Amino acid sequence: MKAKVYVTLKPSVLDPQGKAIHHSVELLGYQSISDIRQGKYFEIALDPALSEAEARQSAEQIAKDVLANPVIEDYRVEIAS
Amino acid sequence: MKAKVYVTLKPSVLDPQGKAIHHSVELLGYQSISDIRQGKYFEIALDPALSEAEARQSAEQIAKDVLANPVIEDYRVEIAS
Repeated sequence: MKAKVYVTLKPSVLDPQGKAIHHSVELLGYQSISDIRQGKYFEIALDPALSEAEARQSAEQIAKDVLANPVIEDYRVEIAS
Repeated sequence: MKAKVYVTLKPSVLDPQGKAIHHSVELLGYQSISDIRQGKYFEIALDPALSEAEARQSAEQIAKDVLANPVIEDYRVEIAS
C-alpha cells in the first residue's frame, strides 16, 4: 500500500523559491503564468497487510511529525492501493 | 486555472534524502514503512483565459524545461480549474 503526502507552504507564508522559479520562467518567455509555489511530495510504501484506515493514520502521523512543519506548512495525505 | 506538477526521481535513481527520512521515521518507532521517496511538487497559477489544453501544454513545457531534470526525473502534470 502506498501513501502520497503533499506538503505546501501555507498561503500566508512567503515562498522565495517559488518566486525565483516564477522569475526564471518569465525570463524564458512564458507570459501566462501568474504565480508558482513550490512544495514537497513524498511517496511512502507501507506494509501491504495494513488496512486503508491504519495506513492513513500512520501516514498522517508521519506527515505531521516528520515531513511537514505544521507552523508554516499544510499537508495532505492520499492513500493509493 | 491551476496546474499541479509532481516531479519524482526515476525508480532506478538512488534517493539518499528519502533513505534518510526512512531511517528517521524508523528511529521514531514506525515499523510498517518499507520505503520513502522524496519528490517535488509545484502549483502553477495560469492565466484563467487559457483553455485547458493550452494550460496543459504550457505546464508540460515548463515542467520539462525548468522544473524537472528529464535525465533522472519523471514528471506528471494535472490541471485543476
